[in-house]
Amino acid sequence: MMTTPFEAFSFAKRIPSTPSIGSTTVTKPDHIHLSFGFAAPHLFPIEELSQAAYEAVSLHGRTALQYSGSGGPRKILEWIQNRSLVHGIQAELPQILVTYGSTQGIDIAARILLDPGDHVWVESPSFFSALQAFRAAEAVITSFPIDEDGLRVDLVENALLEARRQNKPIPKFVYTMPTYHNPGGVTLTTERRARLAELAETYNFFIVEDDAYSELNFTGNKYPPLYTLLPGRVIYLNTFSKIIGPGLRLGWMIADRRVIDKARLLNLGGSIGVFTQEILAQLLDRLAFQEHVDQLSQHYHKQRDIMAEAIKSSFGDHVTFHLPEGGFYIWLRFGEAVNTSDFLREAAERGVSFVDGKSFFAKPEGYHYARLCFSYVSEEQILRGVNILADAYFAYEEQRLFGVTKQRHL
Amino acid sequence: MMTTPFEAFSFAKRIPSTPSIGSTTVTKPDHIHLSFGFAAPHLFPIEELSQAAYEAVSLHGRTALQYSGSGGPRKILEWIQNRSLVHGIQAELPQILVTYGSTQGIDIAARILLDPGDHVWVESPSFFSALQAFRAAEAVITSFPIDEDGLRVDLVENALLEARRQNKPIPKFVYTMPTYHNPGGVTLTTERRARLAELAETYNFFIVEDDAYSELNFTGNKYPPLYTLLPGRVIYLNTFSKIIGPGLRLGWMIADRRVIDKARLLNLGGSIGVFTQEILAQLLDRLAFQEHVDQLSQHYHKQRDIMAEAIKSSFGDHVTFHLPEGGFYIWLRFGEAVNTSDFLREAAERGVSFVDGKSFFAKPEGYHYARLCFSYVSEEQILRGVNILADAYFAYEEQRLFGVTKQRHL
Repeated sequence: MMTTPFEAFSFAKRIPSTPSIGSTTVTKPDHIHLSFGFAAPHLFPIEELSQAAYEAVSLHGRTALQYSGSGGPRKILEWIQNRSLVHGIQAELPQILVTYGSTQGIDIAARILLDPGDHVWVESPSFFSALQAFRAAEAVITSFPIDEDGLRVDLVENALLEARRQNKPIPKFVYTMPTYHNPGGVTLTTERRARLAELAETYNFFIVEDDAYSELNFTGNKYPPLYTLLPGRVIYLNTFSKIIGPGLRLGWMIADRRVIDKARLLNLGGSIGVFTQEILAQLLDRLAFQEHVDQLSQHYHKQRDIMAEAIKSSFGDHVTFHLPEGGFYIWLRFGEAVNTSDFLREAAERGVSFVDGKSFFAKPEGYHYARLCFSYVSEEQILRGVNILADAYFAYEEQRLFGVTKQRHL
Repeated sequence: MMTTPFEAFSFAKRIPSTPSIGSTTVTKPDHIHLSFGFAAPHLFPIEELSQAAYEAVSLHGRTALQYSGSGGPRKILEWIQNRSLVHGIQAELPQILVTYGSTQGIDIAARILLDPGDHVWVESPSFFSALQAFRAAEAVITSFPIDEDGLRVDLVENALLEARRQNKPIPKFVYTMPTYHNPGGVTLTTERRARLAELAETYNFFIVEDDAYSELNFTGNKYPPLYTLLPGRVIYLNTFSKIIGPGLRLGWMIADRRVIDKARLLNLGGSIGVFTQEILAQLLDRLAFQEHVDQLSQHYHKQRDIMAEAIKSSFGDHVTFHLPEGGFYIWLRFGEAVNTSDFLREAAERGVSFVDGKSFFAKPEGYHYARLCFSYVSEEQILRGVNILADAYFAYEEQRLFGVTKQRHL
């Protein structure tokens, strides 16, 4: 019956034309995923979770399955409130909104703050799902480099001065991952945090602070969340993905109550998965959380060291990187002429995946970077994976420099 | 430190100024919620769910907690595919997208299809969360009445002819709940379905078909989903909320693969709650679904009859309503001069809540309607609740007609 061609319909302009990140080809059963920013599965609190799930259903099932749940959502708000205090964040319960992971938090922030054509400033590199959300919000994205101390706030300041002088648009918000940056691995210094907060106040923009990795602290060094410096102009995002498990898809937003009220008005899919919240509430009740997080941090710290050593011994002076103080990632910088996208497939065929640099940038740039993730894989896989990756790289290098196609035995 | 006033920042225009529905005052512990479109809690498959939750975690916990899960999401797609066949819907797996309830499905459809200023045509009355989603998409909403046979497709046709003649905007989509309409309780006839599908094809618009209640069939009568009539131009939405439990917040969208691909590009919060999907997959494995749904339908059928009788005996000829063939709701029509919002508080104080008519309309209208829900409450509560509601109404009527303020004993 369909005679009008599909193409005759014009869909919303907001839909991005490409996925935020290319999928990885997996060809071997023992494929090593250095691309996955996944939590280490053996550290999931499975036993407690299994009990929690059973009890949430058997004790509270009839209410847990309704829209509003059985007290679990409130317990989770209270847990977030208490845990936030450890990081210096004071928030009343109506200032906290539970979201489907911090990715939904980013999407909500974009939808609250942005009309089509509005400006967003981001770090380069930045989190690809955030870039995708800003594209879907039809924002104009401008990016600013990071260095060892995080976002170059001085360049942001210059751009703001310039914008004001030339009557050009001030951003609606700056999206930043100040602590254990994904993918950069760097952390914004306390001085730069203070300066960025001052700029937000002076120039009347918001900061969307993505703090997804902050609990995974390898050094004990503490940095004030931007939220604590300017609570009225920071939308703070965090997630249970790294500290419990990403499959829960639960995170949270903390902001001025008036901001949270606006988020609620968007009415995105009704209430957030109450059933999962009931289970999580039971879990948090019985989990020694600080101990759990310390264990995670120690594990990822060790994994980081193993990967850093492996990179040095396999790549020598072909790469540089910042040793991250926390989080999941090492961000490799190759020589300027290298394009990591060009050996992505070669590496996959040899059994290793990583994410190429360009996936993290708003513009076509960053080709000579690559993100390796040390969280999901085992020690043995890190050693083997980095080694294989180096082989793929050197084969690519040889061909690039000398035009030689080596005979490969796969 | 904050010196720039909060009001100096201009938030996105898309944020609606009011919540989609007013909250109900609850003053008594034995308050009767005729407002809640909730499933009957005693029919939740708690025992099976409790086992399912335990097994999902203990058997598949390490993968269930990751982003991609452990086969649960695929099992759910297959379950949806099979169950859809019962309703005549044939869909390949890549045509099915699991969503956070059908409310997220509505939101996604709006974001795929609408740019700000685009036109959406809806029924009056319509589902309030859908209206809210269309407002958040900055759509121009036009509404068309329903009668006993569902949407007045003839009026839609006239408006389309008129729009074409006068070169006025054709809608990007028509949002409809053809089967067991919320709140209207009516069902679109097979003839009107065919005509609506023809119009969508001729005039090149989409139909967003919200089929949330279709499994709750009291009569055995079957109607073809609009999707089966025009698969290329219908976005079909359904949910586990009414058939399993709303707390799961899981639903699905079926559409042309190119539409689903666009939805995926929005990248809304990453993958959908995989952990809940693992549990649901285990549940669906062990649940005799047809038996379960038959039991639900029988129960709600009985509840409908009890409520219909109670309304007739308590309200006499002060109200009219259509006896719904399925679903959760009876939609009361009072005399034109009645404003049901005016005795909402009176009823709440006497211990009964309902939803006033105006909540279901895009424009200020529908004041003389009220929605009663027979799904959540017990038989005894239906009888008592309808009786109390009638008392509140007659007290209001007396005051409205004769200006008498009766002394009330609350």
